Amino acid sequence: MFPINLRINSDRFQANFRSLAQIGASEDGGINRTTFSPAHLQAREWFRDRITDANLELHMDSAGNHSAILRCISANAPTLLLGSHLDSVPNGGMFDGALGVLAALEVLQTVQDEKLSLPFHLEAIDFTDEEGTLMGFLGSGALTGKLTTNDLLEPRGSRQTFLDLIALAGLTEDGLYNARRNNHSLVGYLELHIEQGEHLCKAEANIGIVTNIVGIGSYQIIFTGRANHSGTTSMQSRLDAAQGVSAFTLEVRKLIIKDFPDCVANIGNISIEPGAFNIVPERAIASLEYRAPTTELLEHLETALLDLAKEQAKRFNLDLETKNLGLHPPAPMDIEIQAIFKRAAHTLGLSAISMNSGAGHDAQLLVEICPAGMVFVPSIDGISHSPREYTTWSDCVNGANMLLLAVLDLSSQY
Amino acid sequence: MFPINLRINSDRFQANFRSLAQIGASEDGGINRTTFSPAHLQAREWFRDRITDANLELHMDSAGNHSAILRCISANAPTLLLGSHLDSVPNGGMFDGALGVLAALEVLQTVQDEKLSLPFHLEAIDFTDEEGTLMGFLGSGALTGKLTTNDLLEPRGSRQTFLDLIALAGLTEDGLYNARRNNHSLVGYLELHIEQGEHLCKAEANIGIVTNIVGIGSYQIIFTGRANHSGTTSMQSRLDAAQGVSAFTLEVRKLIIKDFPDCVANIGNISIEPGAFNIVPERAIASLEYRAPTTELLEHLETALLDLAKEQAKRFNLDLETKNLGLHPPAPMDIEIQAIFKRAAHTLGLSAISMNSGAGHDAQLLVEICPAGMVFVPSIDGISHSPREYTTWSDCVNGANMLLLAVLDLSSQY
Repeated sequence: MFPINLRINSDRFQANFRSLAQIGASEDGGINRTTFSPAHLQAREWFRDRITDANLELHMDSAGNHSAILRCISANAPTLLLGSHLDSVPNGGMFDGALGVLAALEVLQTVQDEKLSLPFHLEAIDFTDEEGTLMGFLGSGALTGKLTTNDLLEPRGSRQTFLDLIALAGLTEDGLYNARRNNHSLVGYLELHIEQGEHLCKAEANIGIVTNIVGIGSYQIIFTGRANHSGTTSMQSRLDAAQGVSAFTLEVRKLIIKDFPDCVANIGNISIEPGAFNIVPERAIASLEYRAPTTELLEHLETALLDLAKEQAKRFNLDLETKNLGLHPPAPMDIEIQAIFKRAAHTLGLSAISMNSGAGHDAQLLVEICPAGMVFVPSIDGISHSPREYTTWSDCVNGANMLLLAVLDLSSQY
Repeated sequence: MFPINLRINSDRFQANFRSLAQIGASEDGGINRTTFSPAHLQAREWFRDRITDANLELHMDSAGNHSAILRCISANAPTLLLGSHLDSVPNGGMFDGALGVLAALEVLQTVQDEKLSLPFHLEAIDFTDEEGTLMGFLGSGALTGKLTTNDLLEPRGSRQTFLDLIALAGLTEDGLYNARRNNHSLVGYLELHIEQGEHLCKAEANIGIVTNIVGIGSYQIIFTGRANHSGTTSMQSRLDAAQGVSAFTLEVRKLIIKDFPDCVANIGNISIEPGAFNIVPERAIASLEYRAPTTELLEHLETALLDLAKEQAKRFNLDLETKNLGLHPPAPMDIEIQAIFKRAAHTLGLSAISMNSGAGHDAQLLVEICPAGMVFVPSIDGISHSPREYTTWSDCVNGANMLLLAVLDLSSQY
């Protein structure tokens, strides 16, 4: 049996966490490490250095995923993956993603320090572009073979941004498909992440055990009217695209509150063309994202949102174009891994609740090819994707120990 | 007396017009000649070449205004200014501004061809940045001494754009003030422009004689909420800046239609920060411009718009910041020049109506230091600031002949 009183090294874990948090740090305490930005490339290099410093095996695949590997004695054994992502949203927080990658690395180092002999290889992975600077879940999509040609042709950012940035990281479009792994090579996938919501704080629980990750859809919604002189064109005769996008933005919120209380939707960006003070807006583009816990709800919500866009376009005599930018279906987590996490929380004396994840995570792709599970630790006031994102250090340590005990539990059963 | 049967050279005028329209032309028939862009610099050079080709005197001032001068016999005589501007809005039309500058040049050439001896110098001027890439009315503001330090410190575009672009054109900030002219040096200012609205088309009139140019105010309206994760933050607990800016955009239109039927307002741009699909918008910035025919209405409208912004910020629990980007008061045109234009229309056998200008023009600054007047020719369907802007060539020629006859009329009276 494995030593269930084993704990990760909090000091080493914290030193790594603080060191990484300086890369891409903004003055207001935020982190700017969008995929393949200079700061993100620097963070990747920092991670590779930590892996070699720790005498772990460094692995990089053709989708830009980085890993530390701790080999077990049997070369042909499968691998238990632990990980998350080092990229951030623009002006995000220091915990999102980074915590899970560093906790995974710390678990490997703890197992290595104890010279434990596990029945599988242990791998701490940093997945490429989880947040969606390029397309979202690029690395985990490539690893699980879920990447499609369509995803690459119509990335969330622009096609040119995608091509420029992967080239900057030394990747090629064709190479992305080669990162795919065989299902049989994986024992499972475990991910520690901050909750990014306020359920745990409100419930005063230490740990969230994820039962299901919500599905996510995204669209560009494009209203087109007619550019005209803002001083000489009467309000009544304008075909003003800004009116359409504004009405849509307000109505989306009302729709969710009224008809889809278990869902959310976000207009995260609006851009206007030509965008001058003295020209009636010709085009207005909304970046729409929506999330639902079940496939059925996700589909109903998509239909309702597109209907809403049509109504608002019609109301202001605008043309409408909608571009589907991809869908991630809801992903139930592995039941057995949830049970393992419950035992780990009990062993550690931590209060744990089961919960949905409102945020998307790489685990939703991994669960399609192997047993996968996630552990959440509390986000103060539920704030995330913001410089004000914060999780106490003791909660971070709890999360890393949850991962460690789950690894030991899986080893015992294997 | 002067020959009232004299007419401008339509062929030469058209050849110049077509040649200029190719500079900065876009594929869809629009013009991109924003101030000091490569195409605008090229158009300026083209204009200087035309002036020297025509054996007219080339004059450039320290605000980047270009002129062709046809000197009269008396060196100390004052100057009658004719002109408009060569810059365009982004993806604007080929008539806006360019028509007035080329008609002015054509009038000088016609007078020169006829070897008429006028009692004043005649000057065809291209004013810098009428459209507001930098600040709007930069050249006419400098020439009339209406430019303030404040205008330069908070330009409509950014301060950096302003500094970069004036440097590109070889201008300096301090130099701008030196373009000021003495009131006594000017006989008056006449400007031909397309109407940019549909009054003339609807009235089936050939010529609009401007009685008054509406006043214009502009603001940046900034709503600030809280960035947060779009998947884990409930709709109710968001502080979503996009909701504020959207509600404001819709309410501005309703306000004008309901309470200010003689005014207009435009939200010409909206920008969102950080602007990612999966982040609740933290900041939303609206570019607001509003116009009214009287000072009293302009002030009432400003108050009502700012109150509206406050209401909408409060409604969505957002912070509000408003930045005043300057005001151009309503400008009544000179009565005597209006009478001269009426006589010219009668001589030419053209139907003319008196009308307000909903658009701002350099004439509104010139009228503060000398008698100024404007002539409009019809815009098909009232479309302007768009590639679809169009005026028939016979209307363009009518406008240029209106200028010519007004010059002769003024000469007779002088």
